[in-house]
Amino acid sequence: MQRFALIGAGFIGAVHAASLAAHPEVDFVGVHDVDTTRAGTLATRFGARVLDGAEVFDASHLDAVFIASSTDTHAQHLRSAADAGLAVLCEKPIAADLAEAVAVSEHVRASGVPAMLDFNRRFDRDHAELQRVVASGGVGDVELMQLTSRGPSLPPSEYLRSSGGQLRDQTVHFFDLVRWISGQDPVSVFATGSALVDPSIREFGDVDTSVTTLTLPSGALVQIDSVRRTGYGYDERIEVMGATGLVESGRNRRGNLTRYSAGHVVLDGLHDGWFERVQPTYAATLAAFVAALEAGVEPPVSLDDGIRAQAIAEAASRSLTSARTEAIDYP
Amino acid sequence: MQRFALIGAGFIGAVHAASLAAHPEVDFVGVHDVDTTRAGTLATRFGARVLDGAEVFDASHLDAVFIASSTDTHAQHLRSAADAGLAVLCEKPIAADLAEAVAVSEHVRASGVPAMLDFNRRFDRDHAELQRVVASGGVGDVELMQLTSRGPSLPPSEYLRSSGGQLRDQTVHFFDLVRWISGQDPVSVFATGSALVDPSIREFGDVDTSVTTLTLPSGALVQIDSVRRTGYGYDERIEVMGATGLVESGRNRRGNLTRYSAGHVVLDGLHDGWFERVQPTYAATLAAFVAALEAGVEPPVSLDDGIRAQAIAEAASRSLTSARTEAIDYP
Amino acid sequence: MQRFALIGAGFIGAVHAASLAAHPEVDFVGVHDVDTTRAGTLATRFGARVLDGAEVFDASHLDAVFIASSTDTHAQHLRSAADAGLAVLCEKPIAADLAEAVAVSEHVRASGVPAMLDFNRRFDRDHAELQRVVASGGVGDVELMQLTSRGPSLPPSEYLRSSGGQLRDQTVHFFDLVRWISGQDPVSVFATGSALVDPSIREFGDVDTSVTTLTLPSGALVQIDSVRRTGYGYDERIEVMGATGLVESGRNRRGNLTRYSAGHVVLDGLHDGWFERVQPTYAATLAAFVAALEAGVEPPVSLDDGIRAQAIAEAASRSLTSARTEAIDYP
Amino acid sequence: MQRFALIGAGFIGAVHAASLAAHPEVDFVGVHDVDTTRAGTLATRFGARVLDGAEVFDASHLDAVFIASSTDTHAQHLRSAADAGLAVLCEKPIAADLAEAVAVSEHVRASGVPAMLDFNRRFDRDHAELQRVVASGGVGDVELMQLTSRGPSLPPSEYLRSSGGQLRDQTVHFFDLVRWISGQDPVSVFATGSALVDPSIREFGDVDTSVTTLTLPSGALVQIDSVRRTGYGYDERIEVMGATGLVESGRNRRGNLTRYSAGHVVLDGLHDGWFERVQPTYAATLAAFVAALEAGVEPPVSLDDGIRAQAIAEAASRSLTSARTEAIDYP
Repeated sequence: MQRFALIGAGFIGAVHAASLAAHPEVDFVGVHDVDTTRAGTLATRFGARVLDGAEVFDASHLDAVFIASSTDTHAQHLRSAADAGLAVLCEKPIAADLAEAVAVSEHVRASGVPAMLDFNRRFDRDHAELQRVVASGGVGDVELMQLTSRGPSLPPSEYLRSSGGQLRDQTVHFFDLVRWISGQDPVSVFATGSALVDPSIREFGDVDTSVTTLTLPSGALVQIDSVRRTGYGYDERIEVMGATGLVESGRNRRGNLTRYSAGHVVLDGLHDGWFERVQPTYAATLAAFVAALEAGVEPPVSLDDGIRAQAIAEAASRSLTSARTEAIDYP
Repeated sequence: MQRFALIGAGFIGAVHAASLAAHPEVDFVGVHDVDTTRAGTLATRFGARVLDGAEVFDASHLDAVFIASSTDTHAQHLRSAADAGLAVLCEKPIAADLAEAVAVSEHVRASGVPAMLDFNRRFDRDHAELQRVVASGGVGDVELMQLTSRGPSLPPSEYLRSSGGQLRDQTVHFFDLVRWISGQDPVSVFATGSALVDPSIREFGDVDTSVTTLTLPSGALVQIDSVRRTGYGYDERIEVMGATGLVESGRNRRGNLTRYSAGHVVLDGLHDGWFERVQPTYAATLAAFVAALEAGVEPPVSLDDGIRAQAIAEAASRSLTSARTEAIDYP
Repeated sequence: MQRFALIGAGFIGAVHAASLAAHPEVDFVGVHDVDTTRAGTLATRFGARVLDGAEVFDASHLDAVFIASSTDTHAQHLRSAADAGLAVLCEKPIAADLAEAVAVSEHVRASGVPAMLDFNRRFDRDHAELQRVVASGGVGDVELMQLTSRGPSLPPSEYLRSSGGQLRDQTVHFFDLVRWISGQDPVSVFATGSALVDPSIREFGDVDTSVTTLTLPSGALVQIDSVRRTGYGYDERIEVMGATGLVESGRNRRGNLTRYSAGHVVLDGLHDGWFERVQPTYAATLAAFVAALEAGVEPPVSLDDGIRAQAIAEAASRSLTSARTEAIDYP
Repeated sequence: MQRFALIGAGFIGAVHAASLAAHPEVDFVGVHDVDTTRAGTLATRFGARVLDGAEVFDASHLDAVFIASSTDTHAQHLRSAADAGLAVLCEKPIAADLAEAVAVSEHVRASGVPAMLDFNRRFDRDHAELQRVVASGGVGDVELMQLTSRGPSLPPSEYLRSSGGQLRDQTVHFFDLVRWISGQDPVSVFATGSALVDPSIREFGDVDTSVTTLTLPSGALVQIDSVRRTGYGYDERIEVMGATGLVESGRNRRGNLTRYSAGHVVLDGLHDGWFERVQPTYAATLAAFVAALEAGVEPPVSLDDGIRAQAIAEAASRSLTSARTEAIDYP
């Protein structure tokens, strides 16, 4: 049984609270949030306590802490957890600044606490099956990968302004998937993009529709498209072509009803929102972390995985401006 | 908030216990089972108490009771719940004997307690969408329905011996679906079957592979096939053809991975077992019952629905022997 | 090279003329029709001659004759071809009357000429693959078959009046497919039907929507549904479930375009008419006949196959009236 | 009726000969080839004559000429046809050298003869439907296009050596599709590639696996992947995402058989070869050219379309070396 505290009682904090409460090997001790009212509501709902800033890192009654607070607090909370000797599961990114992320990561590593970054898409049932097929040689040597990341609606302008741009904020998940699925660290990247949905975001250098090309050390090529707003729901898709075949984690429809009429066959559409598609991955991510803690093995996603995905996003963002292939430097 | 007791702590009782514990409007008070050890284990797991035979019908601390005990106890528990003034949700059937089922149903109706039969397949997401399409005229007047009910493995011989036969035990769910989807009570039935998987079940007059044809008052026709053991997993499928189109609640695959190789495209298969396919319907059924209680309206499936499906099964079973169309008599 | 005459220059005659003209091993000599103008038009279009009633059976300049004239002339033309020593490919049925069909078939067999009935659906690419899978044990022993035969529109009343009824006219093709795919002659049949599209056809005892259940000697069961008019195009589908798996020749859509919009995914619909779906089978049927002639082997569909399918249709038609299972007597 | 001569009696010439012979509005007069034996065989098979180098451009007995000879002869034959006043349908490219192509195109335009380039993929049934959907605003303003061009096997080294490289030889068809579908001329291009199948082709600067990114004047983005050898057959796919939806011309499977077994659903695979997939487009291309001639309107694909696609290929080929975005200059 692992005793957990949760930091952050916002939307995603509430999602994690439900996972913590439902997991049979987790004792969900308490919630901390700078907004104590919000923390209280969430704690009550799941039979946990409200924890203050000291209690949430008190190893006498905790084994692990789940960091789901705002991005700018991740680094500090990671350091605190490490100093307290608590295992830590953290939402991405470690820190918006890559150098800071590296420093924190080294601090945590030095402490020896188990740490995992919440790259939840690795725990999507279909993506995980795809990774197993590729890793076990099911399509032969990887030659071409295509990843589609398309959200249904543009986030608010304030969010975008502090997001670091589409490639660092949205595409970074898929940079991680590329590394994980291929088992390779891309060597170079080209990216280009447009602000088609809201031209005003160009003012702070952002794009809402972009395509990225990565080259792997083996010469294999990767195409990623990132879209902030589709007209047809949430669309996420991965295909991997190898020398002997292709495997695809396809678009997910929200149901399996089919209607035939004159001239047309109509199926249920894609999910309206990203959350409906992604929801099952949160509990699966937590389960993987808990299983690692119970088994005393390394969690399946490291802080270094986060740093490497971030390094790709940095190079991709440079390419957006330079209009040329950029080498990727991993710290 | 509805205070519930659960009767029956076997496999399906445990499924319902999880639904009761997770429902935000339910206070899961306690569990009763003739096997008190089993009841205790389940109660502990979900933070409920063990209730004895009197406590489980005590309206001073309960609003509703969920009957998930063995089939031969349903009738008595339904009467007890009615006498205690408790709302009741009951696994099918009311009673194996149709006359007894009618008597119990009338007893419950006279008491005025809300009662619902757990025809859970009505709460399958796709089946429910299909019913809405048909009921709203989406395919025009119904002309032809096809229902497929195929389990992955033959139940044990002891189970089959006391099951009443495939049509009463397995197909009865689909007789209910026909009535619900078409909004009509079938007038006649023809059925034929074979014992292809285990010829020895012929000794007690049973079949493991059967087809049933129903005629609705409108002249519309219905084909149902019932199979106890497939070689390819659990297969449930409904299609409804009307004058202007067709709607289908299709076979459900367990994932959405696709593999292309020379000559073939391989998709994830159907679910291995019935439970994986049907699981979400249990919580949905409970939710519908609770919603009806909270709103003070009739629950969406009545005991009479159970009796009518059973009456169809009786006539179908007669046809199996007579090799001719049998009229259906509803009590 | 096989020298062919064609009898019948109507719609289906024109289809066969195109196949004859395009086949590299066929010398399309001429066309005969009681309407010589129609024969002339067709002959001109495909570089053939008009043949009179004697020339069309003249073995000095012909090897084979293709009978595509009206149903009531098939028997006589088959006898003439046999007497002339010409190989013969004939549209179904041999004769509307089963006894007459048997007599003609024996006459042709006695003559020793190669003869084939044009059960063209056996030459559908997908159906033929399905048959190979089943025949090679790909699904284990056959346990359950489902066949769907649904046309897009009700034929004219005059046609229906002389058609012999839906089971003899439409379903007979699928009785043949059942025999061919299962490799078994059904032993008994139950059928029921309704006149839902045009109630007036009840006056001459016909139905437009019917379901048929066949039992094979192995105990395997077969469901066939026959529909004269759908609201969604031409629908033909076969599935065969065996002890170890299932194989399906699915609904054919007219193209492969997919449109995603909010809430829906829209595919190309089924073919509007039966001809678009079935067209490629005509050339394939001819090719199979020519290949048999060239190889000096028995053609793949015999006149006896026609008689056996007709015998099933007779028993099924009796069941429509008797409302009970009827034994099938093969002549 | 249009009188046609065919130049070139190789593999693709034979394909066009069959189309010419089958078209009801075409009088297939004769065939010219430097290999007169080959020309004779083809002429005999389709009831045409062998034409010498003068006869094939003799407007006294011809209306049009179809150029299907080797690439290096296209330019000269186009000039000869123009000088003779013959309509001309020509395989791509006009000339390997872009400047030469421009000169020839201007010569032909000046002559006033109807001329069409055989960009046959525009006449694929699904691609053409997709184009209509996009052009009619069915997905809103185009924002992102993805095109997949994957052949099943690497062409012989000699072919590759003189092909101009993958982007000029294979991808050029898809550059044309991009222009046609979007109705826009791309402004810039980035391409990168690898020699994964046969590293030796790097010696002459070629690649066998490449990805190309185009930017349209509207800011819309295009991703194209080009693969010479897959392990799973011939794969061609187009999707167009607009502001309100997405339309896809999907992977084509060679049949519609589905097999269910434990754990898997197996569909028919993609076509083994490119020709099976593309074959119907040849007759459709010819039909469109003939229809334009009969109607006296401009053929639907101009020589200028060929030049523009070639100009994109030139810029893309430059990018392969420069590793940066290249502007596209249209002559």
